[in-house]
Amino acid sequence: MKSKNTDKPFEVNNENDKLLIYGRNPVLEALSGGQGIERLLIQKNIEGAGRKIYALAKKAGVPIRPMERKELDRATGATSHQGVAAYLTDYEYSTFEDIRAAADSRGEPLFLVIACGIEDPHNLGSIIRSADGAGVHGVIIPTRHSVSVTPAVVKASAGAAMHMRVARVPNIAQFVGEIKRENVWVYGLDMDGTDYHEADVSGAAALAVGGEGSGLPRLVREKCDFIISLPMRGGVASLNAGSAAAIALYEMAYRRKKTEA
Amino acid sequence: MKSKNTDKPFEVNNENDKLLIYGRNPVLEALSGGQGIERLLIQKNIEGAGRKIYALAKKAGVPIRPMERKELDRATGATSHQGVAAYLTDYEYSTFEDIRAAADSRGEPLFLVIACGIEDPHNLGSIIRSADGAGVHGVIIPTRHSVSVTPAVVKASAGAAMHMRVARVPNIAQFVGEIKRENVWVYGLDMDGTDYHEADVSGAAALAVGGEGSGLPRLVREKCDFIISLPMRGGVASLNAGSAAAIALYEMAYRRKKTEA
Repeated sequence: MKSKNTDKPFEVNNENDKLLIYGRNPVLEALSGGQGIERLLIQKNIEGAGRKIYALAKKAGVPIRPMERKELDRATGATSHQGVAAYLTDYEYSTFEDIRAAADSRGEPLFLVIACGIEDPHNLGSIIRSADGAGVHGVIIPTRHSVSVTPAVVKASAGAAMHMRVARVPNIAQFVGEIKRENVWVYGLDMDGTDYHEADVSGAAALAVGGEGSGLPRLVREKCDFIISLPMRGGVASLNAGSAAAIALYEMAYRRKKTEA
Repeated sequence: MKSKNTDKPFEVNNENDKLLIYGRNPVLEALSGGQGIERLLIQKNIEGAGRKIYALAKKAGVPIRPMERKELDRATGATSHQGVAAYLTDYEYSTFEDIRAAADSRGEPLFLVIACGIEDPHNLGSIIRSADGAGVHGVIIPTRHSVSVTPAVVKASAGAAMHMRVARVPNIAQFVGEIKRENVWVYGLDMDGTDYHEADVSGAAALAVGGEGSGLPRLVREKCDFIISLPMRGGVASLNAGSAAAIALYEMAYRRKKTEA
C-alpha cells in the first residue's frame, strides 16, 4: 500500500540511532510496506484510525507500548504524531528479483535506478524520492563505497525509502553485465554522451548515476549501452548528483509513457 | 569569465565563518566574477598560472599574503590548492536590473528563478547550481524567510553562486506583480497545475519555486500566470525542492532553445 506522506514524518532518535517515525500514514505505511517495526508507541485510549493501527500491530505481533499523549510528545519531539509512533528495525533491503517481480505484477517494462557510490545521505534520499516520483520499480546501490539506507537517508527521502525497493549488489559493473543479458538497456548518466532528450528509452531500462564529484565509475561506464548527458549551459561542469538523477529520471519516465501510449 | 569548477573548491574556515576558496580556477573566478576578495593567500615563489593570479590580485589592490606550501596546506585543510587560496568578503548580491542587463547583453529572452522561502542551504545551493546549468540569468530570493547566500550555500552550489547573479527582494508577491507588468511570464511550480511538458515557456520567463514542505506561498501562487506541475507516479506527494526545480528548469531551458531554433 502506498499513501501520501507529509514532508516531515521522520525523526531520528539520537540515543540509539533507531528510526522513529510518527503520524498515522507513516506508521500505517511501515506496517504494510514490508519494513519491520520494533515497537509501536501509541496513545492510551486512542480512538478512530489509531484503533485500526493498534489492531494491525497486534495482529502482526509487534510489541506495543501505550503512553500518555505528553510522553508521546516527548518521545517524538513533536505534537503532530496523531497518537502513534514506531521504532523501526534495520532497513529491509529487496533483491533484484523482488524489483523485477514488482514490474511484472504491474505489467510495466522494468525501470531501474543504479546509484553508484553516492556518499551523501541527502543525495541518496533525494534520488530514492525522485525515483518514486518517476514511477521507478527499484533502486540498486553497491554494498560498499556507498551510503546505505540509514535513518538520514530515509528522512531525506521523505519516506519514499519505506516503500521503494532498494537492493544492494556487491559489484555494480558485474550487475550491469548481468541485467544486459536479460535485455535490460542500461543508460549511464555522464559527460560526453548523447543529449538526454535524444535517446530512445523505451522497454526495460536502467539509469546508472555516479557519485558526487567522482561521476560514473569507469568500469560501469564501459558496460553501459548508452551514455546520456545533460547540457551544461553555464559555468559549472556538473549538477548536484540528486538534481542530475531527477532530471534524467523524469525525462525517461515521460518518454516511456509516451511510447506506451 | 566563467571557468570549469572542480567539485570541492570551497572550504569554510570555522574560526571566522569567512568563505575560503582555493585552487587556480575558483580563485581566478572570484577575481573576475565580481565577488570581493578580502585576502589572497599564495605560495612563496609560485610559478606559472600562480604568477598571473598574483599579478591580477596586485592590480586589483587585494591584500596578498605569501606563505610556505605547508602553511597553505594547513589554512585550506587540503593539498589540492595549487598554491593559491582566497578569503572572500561578504557575498555581493545583484539587482534585478543587473540580471535583466545580463540577459540583454547576451541577446537572450530573460530567464529567471524565483526561490521562495528555501530554508535548507543544500537546496538553495543546488538550485543555484541547476540554474547555472540551465542557462538562467539570475536567481531571486526573498530578504526574509529564506536562507541567504551563506558559505554553506556557495559550497553546495559547487561555486555557481560565485558567478550566478542572486538578487534579494523584500516582497516576492509584489516583485512578481512588477515583472509581469514588464511582460515577464511567471510560472509557479506547484501541485494541481498544467503538466510541465505542456506549458508554452518561450519569451521572457520566470520559474517560481516554493520552500521545503510549505510549497509556493499562496499570495505568490495567485500572482503566477501559470501553475505547472510534475507528475507524481509513486507514493510521495512531492519531490525535494532542489530536484523539483532542476527538473522544471531543465525542461524549460530545452523547450526555450527549441523555440529559438
